[in-house]
Amino acid sequence: MKSYRKELWFNIPTRRAYINISQDVQGVIDKSGIQEGLCLVNAMHITASVYINDDEPGLLKDYDDFLERIAPHEPISHYRHNQTGEDNGDAHIKRQLMGREVVVAIANSILDLGSRFSMGSLTVNAGNESW
Amino acid sequence: MKSYRKELWFNIPTRRAYINISQDVQGVIDKSGIQEGLCLVNAMHITASVYINDDEPGLLKDYDDFLERIAPHEPISHYRHNQTGEDNGDAHIKRQLMGREVVVAIANSILDLGSRFSMGSLTVNAGNESW
Amino acid sequence: MKSYRKELWFNIPTRRAYINISQDVQGVIDKSGIQEGLCLVNAMHITASVYINDDEPGLLKDYDDFLERIAPHEPISHYRHNQTGEDNGDAHIKRQLMGREVVVAIANSILDLGSRFSMGSLTVNAGNESW
Repeated sequence: MKSYRKELWFNIPTRRAYINISQDVQGVIDKSGIQEGLCLVNAMHITASVYINDDEPGLLKDYDDFLERIAPHEPISHYRHNQTGEDNGDAHIKRQLMGREVVVAIANSILDLGSRFSMGSLTVNAGNESW
Repeated sequence: MKSYRKELWFNIPTRRAYINISQDVQGVIDKSGIQEGLCLVNAMHITASVYINDDEPGLLKDYDDFLERIAPHEPISHYRHNQTGEDNGDAHIKRQLMGREVVVAIANSILDLGSRFSMGSLTVNAGNESW
Repeated sequence: MKSYRKELWFNIPTRRAYINISQDVQGVIDKSGIQEGLCLVNAMHITASVYINDDEPGLLKDYDDFLERIAPHEPISHYRHNQTGEDNGDAHIKRQLMGREVVVAIANSILDLGSRFSMGSLTVNAGNESW
């Protein structure tokens, strides 16, 4: 079995950002030379997510509204996790709902995503956490 | 490494439907001749989900109530995504919460689901979207 | 391709419990001798979850509060599933939100979790269900 591992790094200026990483991941597959198999794409940061959905700006805003409604950032004191000195208690919950990873088939050297799908990464407020 | 890919198609008459696809997936494994490995089952439609849980009618209704409570279909105008002319903004959120895919072990040619588990597919309101 | 399967059993005295299983899973990888590949870790119980996050006590309490707020255990009669005689309708929903499984890369014989990540298992109220 062939395996190939590659780290992709993204710098996000804002507290939350939704990035289309489909081309980045396809680029890694191209480089790997793998034609058939499974591709695992996971976040290595604890409050980041990898998901597959439609890269439509209105939809991404809907997700953002939904996540903020269901696990609001404020008040910071609402989350026990923030007693550690961090302010990203909400981000851990948002990440859990969006998922950490996706597994996608590689078929004929192409990510087998289905029509209209894109692979996205959500990075949720790293806040004042240092890495 | 052996790999095997098969598309399963389902026609759903209603806006949302929960279908037990365990036998369909096991049938694909039987055909593949694979005895040990990983089986990825994912939705190819953007508002469909594949999940593993109990195929108990009351539970499926509970899921449906929960999803509708947390991301209601109406009012359509609540979702920016619907400004594209679609009406399935809620479906994208419901799908995200239920998950796009499952990865299951194949052990001795059998889906290693655990007792009482079934694999289900949720298709959420394709609405007036054309494919 | 090499594959290795191992069942891990945990006894939980309380209705809900969050357990760090990273060392257990790493132990299985050590035993398997697998150096590169994919590791699937999934719950075999219908209301249990495997997730990857920070093993910080405040955060785990935040998750618990969140799950109880979004899908409260009481009133039992709120869930149709409980008409079967069980009382864990909420647990099925909590489990779905936390996820059933994780897929993690094995790189150089080590679980490639990323910094600060731990693999946890949430077991949600088996309640009066018998197995």
